[in-house]
Amino acid sequence: MTSPPAGLPVDLRSDTVTRPDARMREAMARAEVGDDVLDGDPTMRALEEEIARLLGTEDALWVPSGSMGNLIALCVHLERGDRFLAPDRAHILDHEVGTAAWLAGGMPRALPWTAGPGAPSPSDITRAVAHGGPYFALRDRLLCLENTHNAAGGTVTAPREHRRLTDAAHDAGLLVHLDGARLWNAAVALGVPPADLAEGADTVQVCLSKGLGAPVGSVLAGGTEFVREARRVRKMLGGGVRQGGVLAAAGLVALERVERLAEDHDHARLLAAGLAERGWETTTPQTNIVMLPVDDPRHTVAVLAARGVLTVPTDAGVRMITHCDVSRHDVLRAVESFPPPGARPAGRRP
Amino acid sequence: MTSPPAGLPVDLRSDTVTRPDARMREAMARAEVGDDVLDGDPTMRALEEEIARLLGTEDALWVPSGSMGNLIALCVHLERGDRFLAPDRAHILDHEVGTAAWLAGGMPRALPWTAGPGAPSPSDITRAVAHGGPYFALRDRLLCLENTHNAAGGTVTAPREHRRLTDAAHDAGLLVHLDGARLWNAAVALGVPPADLAEGADTVQVCLSKGLGAPVGSVLAGGTEFVREARRVRKMLGGGVRQGGVLAAAGLVALERVERLAEDHDHARLLAAGLAERGWETTTPQTNIVMLPVDDPRHTVAVLAARGVLTVPTDAGVRMITHCDVSRHDVLRAVESFPPPGARPAGRRP
Amino acid sequence: MTSPPAGLPVDLRSDTVTRPDARMREAMARAEVGDDVLDGDPTMRALEEEIARLLGTEDALWVPSGSMGNLIALCVHLERGDRFLAPDRAHILDHEVGTAAWLAGGMPRALPWTAGPGAPSPSDITRAVAHGGPYFALRDRLLCLENTHNAAGGTVTAPREHRRLTDAAHDAGLLVHLDGARLWNAAVALGVPPADLAEGADTVQVCLSKGLGAPVGSVLAGGTEFVREARRVRKMLGGGVRQGGVLAAAGLVALERVERLAEDHDHARLLAAGLAERGWETTTPQTNIVMLPVDDPRHTVAVLAARGVLTVPTDAGVRMITHCDVSRHDVLRAVESFPPPGARPAGRRP
Amino acid sequence: MTSPPAGLPVDLRSDTVTRPDARMREAMARAEVGDDVLDGDPTMRALEEEIARLLGTEDALWVPSGSMGNLIALCVHLERGDRFLAPDRAHILDHEVGTAAWLAGGMPRALPWTAGPGAPSPSDITRAVAHGGPYFALRDRLLCLENTHNAAGGTVTAPREHRRLTDAAHDAGLLVHLDGARLWNAAVALGVPPADLAEGADTVQVCLSKGLGAPVGSVLAGGTEFVREARRVRKMLGGGVRQGGVLAAAGLVALERVERLAEDHDHARLLAAGLAERGWETTTPQTNIVMLPVDDPRHTVAVLAARGVLTVPTDAGVRMITHCDVSRHDVLRAVESFPPPGARPAGRRP
Repeated sequence: MTSPPAGLPVDLRSDTVTRPDARMREAMARAEVGDDVLDGDPTMRALEEEIARLLGTEDALWVPSGSMGNLIALCVHLERGDRFLAPDRAHILDHEVGTAAWLAGGMPRALPWTAGPGAPSPSDITRAVAHGGPYFALRDRLLCLENTHNAAGGTVTAPREHRRLTDAAHDAGLLVHLDGARLWNAAVALGVPPADLAEGADTVQVCLSKGLGAPVGSVLAGGTEFVREARRVRKMLGGGVRQGGVLAAAGLVALERVERLAEDHDHARLLAAGLAERGWETTTPQTNIVMLPVDDPRHTVAVLAARGVLTVPTDAGVRMITHCDVSRHDVLRAVESFPPPGARPAGRRP
Repeated sequence: MTSPPAGLPVDLRSDTVTRPDARMREAMARAEVGDDVLDGDPTMRALEEEIARLLGTEDALWVPSGSMGNLIALCVHLERGDRFLAPDRAHILDHEVGTAAWLAGGMPRALPWTAGPGAPSPSDITRAVAHGGPYFALRDRLLCLENTHNAAGGTVTAPREHRRLTDAAHDAGLLVHLDGARLWNAAVALGVPPADLAEGADTVQVCLSKGLGAPVGSVLAGGTEFVREARRVRKMLGGGVRQGGVLAAAGLVALERVERLAEDHDHARLLAAGLAERGWETTTPQTNIVMLPVDDPRHTVAVLAARGVLTVPTDAGVRMITHCDVSRHDVLRAVESFPPPGARPAGRRP
Repeated sequence: MTSPPAGLPVDLRSDTVTRPDARMREAMARAEVGDDVLDGDPTMRALEEEIARLLGTEDALWVPSGSMGNLIALCVHLERGDRFLAPDRAHILDHEVGTAAWLAGGMPRALPWTAGPGAPSPSDITRAVAHGGPYFALRDRLLCLENTHNAAGGTVTAPREHRRLTDAAHDAGLLVHLDGARLWNAAVALGVPPADLAEGADTVQVCLSKGLGAPVGSVLAGGTEFVREARRVRKMLGGGVRQGGVLAAAGLVALERVERLAEDHDHARLLAAGLAERGWETTTPQTNIVMLPVDDPRHTVAVLAARGVLTVPTDAGVRMITHCDVSRHDVLRAVESFPPPGARPAGRRP
Repeated sequence: MTSPPAGLPVDLRSDTVTRPDARMREAMARAEVGDDVLDGDPTMRALEEEIARLLGTEDALWVPSGSMGNLIALCVHLERGDRFLAPDRAHILDHEVGTAAWLAGGMPRALPWTAGPGAPSPSDITRAVAHGGPYFALRDRLLCLENTHNAAGGTVTAPREHRRLTDAAHDAGLLVHLDGARLWNAAVALGVPPADLAEGADTVQVCLSKGLGAPVGSVLAGGTEFVREARRVRKMLGGGVRQGGVLAAAGLVALERVERLAEDHDHARLLAAGLAERGWETTTPQTNIVMLPVDDPRHTVAVLAARGVLTVPTDAGVRMITHCDVSRHDVLRAVESFPPPGARPAGRRP
């Protein structure tokens, strides 16, 4: 939660850059640990139980990363020749190196954003599964949701819409996995408990190392039997660790900071408003992500970097994420660093 | 080319139902054969060389099915963590049991039909590949085209459009595989040699057992080194056979019948015109496929079957395919068997 | 069953080189066919039912090759993280391009030849499965037997020994797949019906294109549910064909020729005896395979090829296989073509 | 390094149970960190460079576990249809859930222990690769060594033997991966620098969380290009972490404690000698592992657990491992807890 000194760049690339603070570090140094592969590490166990409680699932499992959490869920849910559905540009489709396909064995089908950015409608699910017949040998098995939807700009799915989607999936015979890497942000933005956004999903993955600021770790939650099999797949992938309590301790501290995410959301709105004043058109941030649609994202990213604002190019433009290591002052500095839109050689006019 | 006696159903389910005729059977009975795994079977070799000549490639390889041909091509072209692009609803996406993903290791991305049914535009390819960066770990490697595009209704891509797509792919650093299960139909419909439609593709798969009427077999064509590796992958999949010359002999006869496909195309137009007269709205057939968009394809298929017309439900409606075992007379019988559109309980009004 | 004219080489490389004779070719030319993917091809169905009857299984499925038959069985039986046991040097371990591992997902464990060449003992199975515990995450799932065992020299497992092995496997919770590529040879050598050698195995693969002389095809037999799933995996691998009846017709003729294999076994004994007289030490053939252990198999194979005898180098020496296209006269010619053992520059002295 | 109070069990199950001590915890709390996926975490980088220096490789990569380190190495080295060789009962064969096969795509071949427990001879390698030919489609690609060899009882391969094995592998065209989970133990036992035991290996995996006492982490070392690709595979498997410096800091402290392993080796010898005095026959420990061959390991493990000595059953008997949390006093207590051998109901007489 310390800002970079003036002169240091404002890092809006991702909320993964957040660094553990003193209290987290102290918790790590004091963590009670055990051999998690043999006996269960007591601090990992405490974290897993706390997450299961928060999400309303029977059990949960610590994993080294959100990607591994999603991958394990898919490995457990899918068999070769299965198909899964996911909103277009879901992280699991574009940013997990294809493991959903080659490793978990699933053939993906991207769902359109019929109901808004990042949001398919229930009938998209029904329709995708409805056809078939003797010619269609793929078995539809799973719907993967993502809340917030990163590539759509941190968009939020509210409990009511979420349940309409999971109901449509279950009616069509599908399981539901929720990639909740930033579920905390959605819950805070909506003012609802995370469990309301997990309801109806068979399995959920949540990250501790993004906006919550823990150094390493995600948790995969679901039913007792699912978690038992997930533990085996985690071992397969080499994600079983020994005294992981040192990391889980930081995760437990991170969970105390969910409400703080509201500040990041304020900062995202401040950033969007500031840019609008300077003549730039951005998405209206629902959480901590601001997307700036430009024609040549790489160029704009380079221009901004030269002015001390670190951002990321995506296929939809320039992405900026606020987080606990970016202060209100940093946001204002970032806004001031933006050149006037007219100065962009290859940019799209607002 | 024999029609079913009156009373037998008219089978419009697929051109795969075609049966070998007397001349093919005789060729099979007389085929010179050898152990293809050990020495090369001379008739298989002759067929492979003829296909390579027709498609303008260095070499070619017999395979038991079109699905295996496509699968082998993907296995050779892709590594885990690679992405491939294909027009939405391509056979390779929906109808090959997900092997492109779990077996060949490729993460698919469906391209929209920007330029017409079944047809992406060159800029769809460019755009899909353009973004990326440190966050995008998937490697775009391959474009898979399909000519004619089955699920779009047997639509044809002409040489000029084909080359614009393959050029865009190559400019973006992609290889190109062409699923030419019905490439013969496209060539006949366009009045061009098949090689004109294969140009620009790195590898091509063509079927002998669809409209051409051979009982079993497809051929995968490409460069010398590709075919060498494809032979190894064929062995992996259990597609290497011993005295396959008996099948290849039928394939060589089938190749003499490419021009006859014009008759199937005439019949498809006759079918569409007849249905239009009876008040049904269909796609305008470009080759031998007629799609009838209805709301409840399974119901319509059942109604037609009861009246002696065999068809197939797809997600786009009812599919009908003409072929050498369907005569002009059969087409007229099929048209007459259609109930008036108003009679469809759940059908869409034309 | 025609011998090469004097001057042509005697081909002892494999019984896969056998060519269909006139009667088979006629059966192929006359075969009743259908679209096997859509409706079932009647001649394929007849062959499948006949094999199921001969082996005493509920159902059976035509496949293009023995390798695909084994691969499908493993795909159905195994999940990722499963282990399977097989006698050391089984075909499935060494000669199927590792698909048991990378494609079917099985980790192999080779069993020693405790009970004779190619033959593990029941306690080898029990012991391999017995250990385990929390540290051993692999799940033992399957025993793969091979009768006759090719690499051991065509060795035979008798019904009693076979049942002791399958009993040990079942007691240990394993399924049993039998690679019976040359099960016909074992049955004839033992004078028992093939079903006696299939009893106790959950699934069995038999080849029609080796000693029986059909040009292409194997059959995978097992329970009804197994065959249903096997059909789906066959489609995945691209092994589904359309009018396969033309091949199945040859298979049905081939089945009339099982008893003729006795002649090949006589010829193998004749070959071994002839070589012994000339001072060469070989294995004692139990069926149609003779192994000649030499230090430098490739060299010996080259020397023999130059003298008109085609053989194959293996890690155990030079392999020779008799079959229907090798006559008694050919065997005698082959024996005469052998140089005296002393003449082998790099050979092992008998 | 604190012993359990009298009354607490002596935990000889594994050196993975070791817990970080105060100095390690302090280092973790103070670690400088960064986002390793985006920029490289400085402490992880420092650890990677130190390991590369110690092992004499160009570069190195932190991974969450030894299993993942081995798996990544195999993924980079192997393609589908490749075979790898490893000493019988290597960890990679029996204890990594078959990922070498189904995930990395390698078909394993176990090498016999010709040269001693856990130790194949160079000619075993040469012979395994020598045969082949048109019938042998598997490509031999990799030799995996393990030093110390866990299942053989922590046996050591000296530099000279190690180099004879790597030379034989390279001569046969193989790459060499060394599973050095306990390479530090081998180096200390032999009195040589670890680099002497890594020489000749193309890639090496070493663990920090076993005898060295770090809570989590291993390192995979090799050439620059290998490490670049390994980083991508690590991301695939979900092993990329963000602020991993908190763990790497513990790893750097752990590296200061390599020499301390000599104490564990002393304790293992003390344990073996004590058991011998009480009439038990064990392996002669070369490092920190003592194997007690008994007929019914599970029973013996249960008996010992009831007496406060925790051990592990393996297929070779009961395994005991000394480590920094087991003192000389604990070893003596453990020895005293053993019943007389005659008392074992199902044990093997010494």
